[in-house]
Amino acid sequence: MRVEILCTGDEILTGKTINTNHSHIAQRLGEAGLEVCWGTTVGDDRAALLAAFRLAAARADAVVVNGGLGPTVDDLSQEVAAEAAGVPLVLHEPWLVRMEAFYARRNRPMPLNNRKQAMLPEGAEFIDNPIGTACGFAVAIEGTRFYFTPGVPREMRRMLDEQVLPRLLASSGLQGVTRLKRFHSFGIGESRADEMLAGIEAMAPGGGVKLGFQAHYPQLETKVAVRGADQDELDRKLAPIEAEIRRRLGNFVVAEDGQTLESVVLDALRARGGSLAAAETFTGGAIAARLLQVEGSEELFRRGLVSRNPGQLAAAAGTTAGEFSPPMARAVCLALQAQSGATHAIAVVVTMDAGTDRTDAGGAITIGLAEPEGIIVREARLVGGREWVRLGAVEMGLDCLRRHLLGLPTDERLDFERR
Amino acid sequence: MRVEILCTGDEILTGKTINTNHSHIAQRLGEAGLEVCWGTTVGDDRAALLAAFRLAAARADAVVVNGGLGPTVDDLSQEVAAEAAGVPLVLHEPWLVRMEAFYARRNRPMPLNNRKQAMLPEGAEFIDNPIGTACGFAVAIEGTRFYFTPGVPREMRRMLDEQVLPRLLASSGLQGVTRLKRFHSFGIGESRADEMLAGIEAMAPGGGVKLGFQAHYPQLETKVAVRGADQDELDRKLAPIEAEIRRRLGNFVVAEDGQTLESVVLDALRARGGSLAAAETFTGGAIAARLLQVEGSEELFRRGLVSRNPGQLAAAAGTTAGEFSPPMARAVCLALQAQSGATHAIAVVVTMDAGTDRTDAGGAITIGLAEPEGIIVREARLVGGREWVRLGAVEMGLDCLRRHLLGLPTDERLDFERR
Repeated sequence: MRVEILCTGDEILTGKTINTNHSHIAQRLGEAGLEVCWGTTVGDDRAALLAAFRLAAARADAVVVNGGLGPTVDDLSQEVAAEAAGVPLVLHEPWLVRMEAFYARRNRPMPLNNRKQAMLPEGAEFIDNPIGTACGFAVAIEGTRFYFTPGVPREMRRMLDEQVLPRLLASSGLQGVTRLKRFHSFGIGESRADEMLAGIEAMAPGGGVKLGFQAHYPQLETKVAVRGADQDELDRKLAPIEAEIRRRLGNFVVAEDGQTLESVVLDALRARGGSLAAAETFTGGAIAARLLQVEGSEELFRRGLVSRNPGQLAAAAGTTAGEFSPPMARAVCLALQAQSGATHAIAVVVTMDAGTDRTDAGGAITIGLAEPEGIIVREARLVGGREWVRLGAVEMGLDCLRRHLLGLPTDERLDFERR
Repeated sequence: MRVEILCTGDEILTGKTINTNHSHIAQRLGEAGLEVCWGTTVGDDRAALLAAFRLAAARADAVVVNGGLGPTVDDLSQEVAAEAAGVPLVLHEPWLVRMEAFYARRNRPMPLNNRKQAMLPEGAEFIDNPIGTACGFAVAIEGTRFYFTPGVPREMRRMLDEQVLPRLLASSGLQGVTRLKRFHSFGIGESRADEMLAGIEAMAPGGGVKLGFQAHYPQLETKVAVRGADQDELDRKLAPIEAEIRRRLGNFVVAEDGQTLESVVLDALRARGGSLAAAETFTGGAIAARLLQVEGSEELFRRGLVSRNPGQLAAAAGTTAGEFSPPMARAVCLALQAQSGATHAIAVVVTMDAGTDRTDAGGAITIGLAEPEGIIVREARLVGGREWVRLGAVEMGLDCLRRHLLGLPTDERLDFERR
């Protein structure tokens, strides 16, 4: 089934807001096995919206419309949808009641404007919005089904997954339920991961499995979209595929689904009753920031030090040491471990190539990791300019911790590494 | 003049890549006084591309096409443009020579594929790409002028500003040169800034001035787009407007144009021969990270400490202190100043409201700033959930430093503040 995505709103058209809704909707449709055939963006303009509806109706089997459902006069989606469908707008009484209750719970009177949000094209199918005042709806325009969703990303995302996708799948004749399994890896590039996972899609008898990659340097996300008749079939299909992906990507998988590398590190630390301190240089405190953004990390992460000056960093950790080097990283993490009382202390020091920044500039990274039984030192060289090296060093530091805490080798070669 | 933006590529259509090019092109066109009337996204598909060209030609006065100029078989823009224009593709010899020289400088043979990038529709106007192998071109399709640009953002941005915009402006009859002046402020919301700057556009006799806002919490960007006959006229138009905006927004302007709040802080510190250390809690090291990302900051920023545990933070600074509080922030920044030898030391401590995160959760922020002549303590309360408070506290800390270093009041009330 060929689906068009139609985004409306002056903020999107004029570029004031980046259109992340298109990419989210398109990804979710693709993962469910639907083909996105066209994308249209128009402003809050009656004639443009009407023309866009007519063109999309002629082109696509179904259309997902986003935006234009708000309470203000420039929100035109319901009104123009009714015009295009050749029907009047009528009050959807249950939604008006819901909105009034929504405002009553907040002890505020409902503004008169909001009544507009309960006016839907006659005969439209109501689509619930459990978390906002803009309900969605579906209506046929020139024989093509249009699904209307609000522009607020949080509301759109929930309605898309819970209400629009199931309707699209049902009308497309595709099997009814889908699931998305995600693996986050560090250390392998997209083309190598693609090679490593050759033949994975074909493992499912009868098909319905789609593999995709999304690179967010330094991590790579591997997505497996599965379609099946029901949840049981999804479980049966996915289990051997999940296991095989874990086996093939091996130690490079740092997290799955909603986990993050930093949450995995903290969970492993918590499981062994540990605690952590970190000393950073060129990474500017980003390792501490990543860890401290996880809720509950404050009990595990004792302290972080950051300086680009070797003397200052060593002094802050309570030691003396020379220039940034492997012995210096070793001295600093041991001193920091003693000083903070943490079971584990990591020091990540980076020496960038001399000269101005350029895309082939590299950096020598040394990670010192003091743990209760001893100390590990990992050295690496990354290339790709200052920002690339900085991001890679942050990830290497966190990944080195993860590997050590989980009993995995800390010296496995990364695709990004130069030796 | 009504302009359409047509983006092509499977990665954009399927949502794998977020379409930031549309928003960049749209913003630049809008700032130059051109109206963006429609946005289209199609994949690497011959029929869709051809249909999109024909629809855009019928709708718009000019079209900016982005993407599809690469060397691979799925890059179709030149070929389909020629078909739509009803002309053959012909070799643009000078571009082939340029590409060969480009590869020769890197000591690599030019892959045969790249020859395709020098094939342009017959009669097309060549548009130079000074930094890549995908040249642009302009061609008329059904009477409408189409401007083709590559999908690589860095190349597209430069070609848009240097080559496409001047051509669009010339053909639109608008005056020939434009300039964009930007003010970055912290502490005033978009609607208040809009009120404060009422009447600014009308200050320019003869018009040609457009005011716009873009909120990137916690900062607000105020943009003034000016159009004039030549650079002299731009200077004359802009000077009084710039001065008036600075006067009205006053101390809330933290930076202009390519400056950042952190670069302004470091410049002010450098100008007085100062240096800095920072102690952070809930902000997780983000203040240090912002400062350390500025080139050259390593000489000025001596050390950063971060901990969510008051005892650990105080110990790291070389003092003892109780819970997070104004006296604790005072003690920590004084100890850190002494310990690091920096002329200035800042401590930012935050106490979040108890309970789970929610949009009305607030935090009490205390900023202690030890400077050579004494100490300043600034207290504030921000509301809006953990992340909102965290971002606001980072900005307040940096802004407090800026204000102090520039001799401005550090206790001016912010729009975001609750008392």
